[in-house]
Amino acid sequence: MSGDVEKQAMYFARRAAKYATPKETYWEAPLITSTKQAGEFVDATEQPAKQSTLTKRYTEEAIKFINKSGDEPFFLYVPYTMPHTPLFRSPEFEGRSLGGRYGDVVEEIDWSVGAIQDALKKAGVLENTLVVFSSDNGPWLKMHEEGGRAGLLRHGKGTTFEGGMRVPTVFSWPGTLPSGVVSEIGSTLDLFATVMALTKMPEDVDVTTGVDGFDLTATLLEKAASPRQEMPFYRGGSLYAYRKGPWKMHFITEGAYDQGEKRTKHNIPQLYHLLRDPSERFDVSEKYPEVMADLLAAAAEHQQSVDIQPPLFDRRLMPR
Amino acid sequence: MSGDVEKQAMYFARRAAKYATPKETYWEAPLITSTKQAGEFVDATEQPAKQSTLTKRYTEEAIKFINKSGDEPFFLYVPYTMPHTPLFRSPEFEGRSLGGRYGDVVEEIDWSVGAIQDALKKAGVLENTLVVFSSDNGPWLKMHEEGGRAGLLRHGKGTTFEGGMRVPTVFSWPGTLPSGVVSEIGSTLDLFATVMALTKMPEDVDVTTGVDGFDLTATLLEKAASPRQEMPFYRGGSLYAYRKGPWKMHFITEGAYDQGEKRTKHNIPQLYHLLRDPSERFDVSEKYPEVMADLLAAAAEHQQSVDIQPPLFDRRLMPR
Repeated sequence: MSGDVEKQAMYFARRAAKYATPKETYWEAPLITSTKQAGEFVDATEQPAKQSTLTKRYTEEAIKFINKSGDEPFFLYVPYTMPHTPLFRSPEFEGRSLGGRYGDVVEEIDWSVGAIQDALKKAGVLENTLVVFSSDNGPWLKMHEEGGRAGLLRHGKGTTFEGGMRVPTVFSWPGTLPSGVVSEIGSTLDLFATVMALTKMPEDVDVTTGVDGFDLTATLLEKAASPRQEMPFYRGGSLYAYRKGPWKMHFITEGAYDQGEKRTKHNIPQLYHLLRDPSERFDVSEKYPEVMADLLAAAAEHQQSVDIQPPLFDRRLMPR
Repeated sequence: MSGDVEKQAMYFARRAAKYATPKETYWEAPLITSTKQAGEFVDATEQPAKQSTLTKRYTEEAIKFINKSGDEPFFLYVPYTMPHTPLFRSPEFEGRSLGGRYGDVVEEIDWSVGAIQDALKKAGVLENTLVVFSSDNGPWLKMHEEGGRAGLLRHGKGTTFEGGMRVPTVFSWPGTLPSGVVSEIGSTLDLFATVMALTKMPEDVDVTTGVDGFDLTATLLEKAASPRQEMPFYRGGSLYAYRKGPWKMHFITEGAYDQGEKRTKHNIPQLYHLLRDPSERFDVSEKYPEVMADLLAAAAEHQQSVDIQPPLFDRRLMPR
C-alpha cells in the first residue's frame, strides 16, 4: 500500500510541475491534418503536437485558405487551442507580456487576429467579410495565473455564475457594421440567425423556425435593444439560473468542478441585479417580490418549451 | 432587559432602512459656509444639510469661484460629499442611470466635472489649468450596491488589499499634457511635488527635501517609468503590506472593519504579482525566494527611514 501512496504523491507532484513549466512531450496530444469527415479515423500528423507553434501554424493555414478562396464566398473557423492550459507560445512571444505566460499567449493570439485581418485586406475582401471573435467560457480558476481571470465577474468556468458564462464578443465588418460598444445580451446560440440575416445568404432558407437563436442584426447595426432579453443557464441537464433583462435568478448554485461551494438548491431562489451588482454579490430576492414572480414565470415558461435530452456523449454510449 | 433588546433591534432595523431609502432629515449633518480658518467654530448655515442638491451646489460655487478669479492664478479643491453613503442626487438625476441610486450619483458627479471644465473653457483658462480627478479609497463593501465596487480588485475600503487602496486618477491639461493611458504607480503623496514641478510655481521653493512624494512629471509628459516604484501600505501605525514594482508583499492581512477575515500576521509573508494576478488571489511566496528577499529588504529599509507617529486625532487628545 505504501507504494501506491508514494505513486499517487509522485503523480500529483508531476502534474503540478507539468503545468507550471510545460513541455510538449508531457502531453501525447496528436495533431491531425485532414479533410475527412468527423467520425472517420485518421492517423495523427504529428504526435506529440508541437504546441509552441500551434497558434502561428493555425494563422498560416487560415491565411492560405483565404488566399486560395479568391472571389468565392468562404466560411473560416479558427478555434485556437490557446489559451487553454497547457500554455504554449512561439519563441518570439516568450516574455513579451508583463502578464506572464498567459499574457504572452494572449499577445500571440492578438497578433494572429491582426495577421488574419491583414490577409483579408490584402486579398481585397475585408469589406466583404464578417469577422466574429468570441470565447466559449470563463477562466479555469484551478489553473491559477495560467487559467485566465474573469475580472469583476463571479467565479469561473464550469459554473453558471457570470464568470463562468459571460464573455465579450467582437463583430467586425468594415463598411457594414458601425464601430462602437454595445452592452446588450447575445448568445452564441444567436450567431446562426444573425450571420444568416447579415450575409443575406442563402435566401431560400428559413432561419427562424426551429432555431433557438435571435437575429441580432438591428442591435449590431443601430444599437437597438437586443431581441434576446432572456437566457437560461444550464449545467448538465438542470436549469441552474435564469436571466431576464438586468435580473438573474439562481435556482441552484455550485462551485466549479472540484472548487468552491457544494451544489445547493435554493428553496427561495437567489436574485441579483446584474447592472447594479455585476459580481453577483448581493441577493436581493427579499426586496423585489414582483421581480421574483416575473422571473419564476419566465423560467417556467422556458422549461415547458424545451425537451431536455441527455448530453451527446452520454447518448453515444446508450444502447440503440 | 427585554426593553433594551427591543430598542437595539429597532435601532438596527431603522439603520438599514435609513440607507436603503435615505431622507435628508435622518441625518443631522450641518452644512457650513465659511471662509474662516479650520479650528474656529462657526454656526451651521443649514441643518440638516439639503444633501440632494449638494453636488449641484458645489458645482455652482466652483464655477462662481473660477469666474471671480479672472486672470489671477487659483487653487480650487472640490471634495464631493457623494458618492459616500447616504446617497443623494438632484431630482433630475433620479433614475437616470441603469446602475441604480449609486449610478445616478456617479452620473451627477460626471455632469459636475463636465460643467466645471466648461466653465474653465468659457473663462478662457482651460489651457492654463491643471485638473486632477481622483479618489481616496475603494468601496465601502458593507453598504452593498450603495457602497460602490472595486471591479477585479480584492476587498474594499479599510483594507490594504488593492480594492481598498488602488484608485484611478485623471490628470488633464489640454495643450500641455498629452492624452493617453499611463499604467504606472503614483500616490496622492506625489501630487504636491508633481503639481509644483508642472506648474513651475513658486520657483524658490524646494519641493524635494523633506517631501515624501515623487515628481511624476516625466511619467505624465512622456509616459516614462514612474519614479515611484515602491509603496508602503499602512493600517493604523502598522505596515501591513509593501509594494515594489509588480510585486506586493503582505505582512498582515485583515478584512474591512467588521467584515471579512480576522487580523492575521503571517510568519512567511504572502507574495502577489499584481500584473499577473491583480485580484491578489495566488500567494506565490514559495516560488520566488529572491523576490521575497528583495521585498523584505526594501520594506525594512523603508521602516528604518520613518518615525511612526500616532494618528492626528489621537495626538489631539494627548496631554501636551
